Amino acid sequence: MIEKVFRDPVHNYIHVDHEVIYKLINSKEFQRLRRIKQLGTTSYTFHGGEHSRFSHCLGAYEIARQITEKFEEKYPETWEKSESLLTMVTALLHDIGHGAYSHTFERLFDTDHEEMTCAILTNPKTEVHAILKQVAPDFPDKVANVIRHTYPNKQVVQLISSQIDVDRMDYLLRDSYFTGTNYGQFDLTRILRVIRPTETGIAFRESGMHAVEDYVVSRYQMYMQVYFHPASRSMEVLLQNLLNRAKVLYAAERDFFAQSSPRLLPFFEHRFTLEDYLSLDDGVMNSYFQSWIDGPDRTLSDLAQRYINRKVFKSVTFSSEDEDKLDILRNIVADVGFDPEYYTAVHHNFDLPYDIYRPRATKKRTQIEIIRKDHSLIELSQLSPIVASLSGTIHGDSRFYFPKDMLEETGIFATKNEEFLSYIYNDHFSPGEKNEN
Amino acid sequence: MIEKVFRDPVHNYIHVDHEVIYKLINSKEFQRLRRIKQLGTTSYTFHGGEHSRFSHCLGAYEIARQITEKFEEKYPETWEKSESLLTMVTALLHDIGHGAYSHTFERLFDTDHEEMTCAILTNPKTEVHAILKQVAPDFPDKVANVIRHTYPNKQVVQLISSQIDVDRMDYLLRDSYFTGTNYGQFDLTRILRVIRPTETGIAFRESGMHAVEDYVVSRYQMYMQVYFHPASRSMEVLLQNLLNRAKVLYAAERDFFAQSSPRLLPFFEHRFTLEDYLSLDDGVMNSYFQSWIDGPDRTLSDLAQRYINRKVFKSVTFSSEDEDKLDILRNIVADVGFDPEYYTAVHHNFDLPYDIYRPRATKKRTQIEIIRKDHSLIELSQLSPIVASLSGTIHGDSRFYFPKDMLEETGIFATKNEEFLSYIYNDHFSPGEKNEN
Amino acid sequence: MIEKVFRDPVHNYIHVDHEVIYKLINSKEFQRLRRIKQLGTTSYTFHGGEHSRFSHCLGAYEIARQITEKFEEKYPETWEKSESLLTMVTALLHDIGHGAYSHTFERLFDTDHEEMTCAILTNPKTEVHAILKQVAPDFPDKVANVIRHTYPNKQVVQLISSQIDVDRMDYLLRDSYFTGTNYGQFDLTRILRVIRPTETGIAFRESGMHAVEDYVVSRYQMYMQVYFHPASRSMEVLLQNLLNRAKVLYAAERDFFAQSSPRLLPFFEHRFTLEDYLSLDDGVMNSYFQSWIDGPDRTLSDLAQRYINRKVFKSVTFSSEDEDKLDILRNIVADVGFDPEYYTAVHHNFDLPYDIYRPRATKKRTQIEIIRKDHSLIELSQLSPIVASLSGTIHGDSRFYFPKDMLEETGIFATKNEEFLSYIYNDHFSPGEKNEN
Amino acid sequence: MIEKVFRDPVHNYIHVDHEVIYKLINSKEFQRLRRIKQLGTTSYTFHGGEHSRFSHCLGAYEIARQITEKFEEKYPETWEKSESLLTMVTALLHDIGHGAYSHTFERLFDTDHEEMTCAILTNPKTEVHAILKQVAPDFPDKVANVIRHTYPNKQVVQLISSQIDVDRMDYLLRDSYFTGTNYGQFDLTRILRVIRPTETGIAFRESGMHAVEDYVVSRYQMYMQVYFHPASRSMEVLLQNLLNRAKVLYAAERDFFAQSSPRLLPFFEHRFTLEDYLSLDDGVMNSYFQSWIDGPDRTLSDLAQRYINRKVFKSVTFSSEDEDKLDILRNIVADVGFDPEYYTAVHHNFDLPYDIYRPRATKKRTQIEIIRKDHSLIELSQLSPIVASLSGTIHGDSRFYFPKDMLEETGIFATKNEEFLSYIYNDHFSPGEKNEN
Repeated sequence: MIEKVFRDPVHNYIHVDHEVIYKLINSKEFQRLRRIKQLGTTSYTFHGGEHSRFSHCLGAYEIARQITEKFEEKYPETWEKSESLLTMVTALLHDIGHGAYSHTFERLFDTDHEEMTCAILTNPKTEVHAILKQVAPDFPDKVANVIRHTYPNKQVVQLISSQIDVDRMDYLLRDSYFTGTNYGQFDLTRILRVIRPTETGIAFRESGMHAVEDYVVSRYQMYMQVYFHPASRSMEVLLQNLLNRAKVLYAAERDFFAQSSPRLLPFFEHRFTLEDYLSLDDGVMNSYFQSWIDGPDRTLSDLAQRYINRKVFKSVTFSSEDEDKLDILRNIVADVGFDPEYYTAVHHNFDLPYDIYRPRATKKRTQIEIIRKDHSLIELSQLSPIVASLSGTIHGDSRFYFPKDMLEETGIFATKNEEFLSYIYNDHFSPGEKNEN
Repeated sequence: MIEKVFRDPVHNYIHVDHEVIYKLINSKEFQRLRRIKQLGTTSYTFHGGEHSRFSHCLGAYEIARQITEKFEEKYPETWEKSESLLTMVTALLHDIGHGAYSHTFERLFDTDHEEMTCAILTNPKTEVHAILKQVAPDFPDKVANVIRHTYPNKQVVQLISSQIDVDRMDYLLRDSYFTGTNYGQFDLTRILRVIRPTETGIAFRESGMHAVEDYVVSRYQMYMQVYFHPASRSMEVLLQNLLNRAKVLYAAERDFFAQSSPRLLPFFEHRFTLEDYLSLDDGVMNSYFQSWIDGPDRTLSDLAQRYINRKVFKSVTFSSEDEDKLDILRNIVADVGFDPEYYTAVHHNFDLPYDIYRPRATKKRTQIEIIRKDHSLIELSQLSPIVASLSGTIHGDSRFYFPKDMLEETGIFATKNEEFLSYIYNDHFSPGEKNEN
Repeated sequence: MIEKVFRDPVHNYIHVDHEVIYKLINSKEFQRLRRIKQLGTTSYTFHGGEHSRFSHCLGAYEIARQITEKFEEKYPETWEKSESLLTMVTALLHDIGHGAYSHTFERLFDTDHEEMTCAILTNPKTEVHAILKQVAPDFPDKVANVIRHTYPNKQVVQLISSQIDVDRMDYLLRDSYFTGTNYGQFDLTRILRVIRPTETGIAFRESGMHAVEDYVVSRYQMYMQVYFHPASRSMEVLLQNLLNRAKVLYAAERDFFAQSSPRLLPFFEHRFTLEDYLSLDDGVMNSYFQSWIDGPDRTLSDLAQRYINRKVFKSVTFSSEDEDKLDILRNIVADVGFDPEYYTAVHHNFDLPYDIYRPRATKKRTQIEIIRKDHSLIELSQLSPIVASLSGTIHGDSRFYFPKDMLEETGIFATKNEEFLSYIYNDHFSPGEKNEN
Repeated sequence: MIEKVFRDPVHNYIHVDHEVIYKLINSKEFQRLRRIKQLGTTSYTFHGGEHSRFSHCLGAYEIARQITEKFEEKYPETWEKSESLLTMVTALLHDIGHGAYSHTFERLFDTDHEEMTCAILTNPKTEVHAILKQVAPDFPDKVANVIRHTYPNKQVVQLISSQIDVDRMDYLLRDSYFTGTNYGQFDLTRILRVIRPTETGIAFRESGMHAVEDYVVSRYQMYMQVYFHPASRSMEVLLQNLLNRAKVLYAAERDFFAQSSPRLLPFFEHRFTLEDYLSLDDGVMNSYFQSWIDGPDRTLSDLAQRYINRKVFKSVTFSSEDEDKLDILRNIVADVGFDPEYYTAVHHNFDLPYDIYRPRATKKRTQIEIIRKDHSLIELSQLSPIVASLSGTIHGDSRFYFPKDMLEETGIFATKNEEFLSYIYNDHFSPGEKNEN
């Protein structure tokens, strides 16, 4: 096959040499990823971050292509050449099961994007499945096994999913590029030079240790600065409340939903198929929300217009010991006339930037291994004081969200708002003492 | 007002100091621009180019802000300070009347995005209008006059719309950044240093002449390389044929369209309001196209799935003298079973990269003026040999589009395809001689 | 004065609006900085890092200009406008006393670049002094007092010299840009938006805390990756041994040095003047070293040609408890025929990436202060876990340098080299056990 | 050999896989290039442009490495694998004969950097020669033949020297990066994808035509904006007058020069050897100029301090028909007390940005060939209107240089200066009419 290229602002070009890859990109399930934003509600805060999962998946594939090409050339004794295509295909398809606003949607409708990915890979009705089957009858299952971490070759599994994998490497660079924040930039070229397969997985030559360290720090900074940004999370809780209101209303307003948002019905009724799932995307969801603005329920209508027109909730942080006192705030919100069920929310965002492998942990982490000159392996945080400081530590905060109206100091609710503000100090919920701001 | 900032990958930050600007950004008509891609079908060719008109409009505003700030400070005798807000507002709102896939949509449904912009500005029902009116009762009309080029102050008009205006400066940099092509990059910093108001409009100090020249060349290259890319235009003609088929079918299939694509009805029936227009966006249109895949008409269904799944038409160039012989190709396409009305198209793309002011031209161009040391003005192409070479010259090509199936050399249509290919040489329609490829 | 600009790859443009600044740039003492590399021997390892102190000083000035311009506009109540020129001038001149290969030269010839800076500022014979005096009779002394940290206004002092000052901000960005390492990049634009003067010095608004954190991490990474690179330090020890040999030889070979390197005589004889000091630069020193290659002393000649032709020493790390056993290696080097005095060296490189203010420390650090919403100040490491982890910790290593010849496993010294290598394990001096490599 | 890498800001990394290349880089003749600035006097105007010929030569080599690697892999039938090393070596060494301030030096001392390059390659005393000879006895001559364009394989010759060669591609990108001007940036990645060997030389696939076009335009812009900058040329003419004064003085002041600038003697006396030539570099020359400041001749001393302290001459353009009237200006300069021989200069700078092959031209150009789909070749300007416009046209200007003092309107020479200025209009010599400025 004549090499095809796609211009890409992050990797300059995406190179496609395999017919299989080219066909997968052109499959309808993959093209659908063009209609799903990579960053979901974050693009409401960072307006440049409007790129799709399509572009991220191409990027993850390109990194896999560069790595496997190098592995074939430099480490033929450690890397099985036949794993290269599997690695590239899985990198390309690792997010194919993502749907519109996945994280919120999953919580409300019990879907799971990883399961969906495996369904797309193995369901005989999909174009993706048909293409994969042409490689070998068991190829679709192999790809699914890598996704599920059950594939025996740990090198492949770690390239696709570990604390430093093609997915994360691409999304840090890409989200950083498109949002215009430079925190996510790290030295991919150097990492690609020092990565190598070992008997037990993937490791990095010591000479590139600082580039790996820089990657870990970049990832931490992107979480703190971009992914956990309070305004993005605000749109997420608004969306959650909106969908929740729709779920609650559904029984009473079936006809309205059947007409305004037909493709959501199978989900309201817990009977969706893969095809139903694939029929949803950001554009479909947003056009439904627009329809809901004109609907019969005042709360649904108001939340929908707030979402569509980006009227974000405001928020304050709170300490875990004060979580049970949040009703103080909820009550004032209710007094002003907002149903706290739909006009407030609690949102926790915590991340473990890096961790060593802990055999007894629920979610075991594959630690990052560095190769010393004598070929022995050593875990990253033992060499890097910065990584050691982040290792095993949890970062993030808990926030209480409420309508911006609560902060207005004039108007009919002025007294209530004053009371509301008296519990807030330095943007933090401080119930102990009534503050005079 | 406390300055607000928006992170922007092109200008680093968008600064907002005016309450009016901030409110306009938060209006629902402006937020709607988040749901309309700046580049339309071009993002199917350059996958990075998924940015919205929202981000471009912020960018055009930011350039206007920087220019007017400098004009106020450095040229108080030539620049009327009160024009600054008008300039910034118009820069922000110049594209607010754009709809989904504007260029194609306009051709088929007789809409006009410039008229729509003026309607949004002056219609008392819009949030934008209400905000503008707070500035002054005649402010909405002033903005509309700048859009229509009838505003008396030519400095303002030229900053918004001329051969080197805030719109073009932003979109070249932005489209270049997001698509990952570097052809659109030029030295904005230098241009902002040498731009100045004159008695008759806008001009540039001679010391920055090469930066202006570079801008003209960049613009030309972006047209040739990105905006006129055959694959993007292919998606455009496919969309055009699809919408055309829907229009033709509408009378016979009213119920189908009423259910699958209700917001398009006012357009099919030539009775749309501003509200109808504003209810459309890329997501709405795409979700309609998805619905059409399952519709009753085979052609509509097939074109819709081709569009949604990016099955682009292929194309060949042709010379104007051969345009009347294209029926040769159309007939073969018909022989194979495709209705040429919907499965072929002719597309002309021509651009005049730069031109001097020609008093008798239908569309007069404001020429770019350079200020010499003695303060006299001289038109750019008189100083720049490169610009002179592009000046007044037309660049682009005409293409004939057809299904990719016509190029397949095997299968049941092999003989027909061979005949088809015999008229094509170096991707050019060569009817004179039957070629043996 | 008409604004002058200098094209700069780091800050895009350096803007000069003050006649004083322009004259200082054109003074002969400042122009001399063009002939002194910013990174000294590091350019032998990172070949792109060939920029001069001239360009760094312009950059530090530009950052000072941007900060003071903003301080004047936004914080007129906290920032004394008259301090702006002083700040910009000191930023421009802060390194004017640097000489060729300062760090090495200072150790051998008892010079001190800070003292030299003050001498240039206050010596009536310099052009710099004459220009400064035109501002005010006490202006030269004021600048010198800022340099010496004795100036009463702590805002000015901290902008020039603290853990986050215009000097460091410029050199991290600049060294990073020219060497092509991206570790030193941080978000200067954001830092310039959140920096502000306080009653007691300089602080940063909390919203920009992560940008400041990123700066601290960048600084750490540049030290670890670039400034402490073993190969650069190797050239430094080679230079040190070379100059040391010259010093020792001087008494016996006065005529040779008088002819080959006349401008060094005052330094050999401990009787140098400011003029003598200013007559030296990288080019002068290098041309002297070239002359020494043909000199009468074999060691001097050999070290000079090694330096000029970049024949770097190799190195191993060692633990402090083994430092007294290094004679084992020195003896083998001597056995092979190299004088250990000139052909080996011990080099310690340690950095304290960040520290809080410790009242009892010998060298007190000005801690970085963050401004909370309630206007209280909080020290950076209390908010940032990453900075906390680096705070007060020492990073770096100690290395033993020796001729590359010691690593050659063949040739006449093969046996000796084998013995030498037997004390080295993973590039570390391991005297406890003889290793079999 | 284990691959070595050099961090490079332009190409990210320079990769070295061949022992020969590594040894050449470490040779003393190549290391000497670290001491010679790539841009000569231009760094006095663009202070970032302080990079050396060393870094440019590594860059040209890296481009050659990438091209030949691809040629070997993709075009084994058209590209002789054995030519790869020759191409890389020649790319690395193509500038090894450059000396300090070559262009000026050559004019005054009848040296020639191309001849010097060949001398270094073929002289048995050089390290370079010894290394090349290890490849094959005739290898040094082969390299020299490529330099001289007499090597039979035109592919190799064109890669090293043609209108689009590795030398130009690197220096445009590099000079652009270091000076901080973006005019020289072009899409190298794309060019490297479309370049290919043909039977007769080198050509480019049509799909990359716009990248090649962009390269031609970039080159033109760098000449107009950077290389021909009047201030850089001013330093060049000052240097020329300075060296000329030294030449004239030499006979009378032999002792002074023998002591202050011994390595120049062989050149003053027309008896220099290769070794003499290699002993010179920027640092040596500059330290000589510094010595001359204290010399016995007032003119030499003054010109030397002007050069060292960057006291640039000012200039005006003039038309060729007025060149013989420049004595008007020279006479006024003389009246004020400056010897026009040393204090004025005429400088012509003209460039032919691109040209087709013209069989009868004195200096024949290898035209840039584009490969069409049917494999035929077509010359670039036939496809590109922009290139056509630049093709065969000469760009640049002629300038008359004089001391800045001539522009001062006050002081003892005020009347003379007024007369001087009366012949200048818009920075152009206008002898026809006395202007009243």
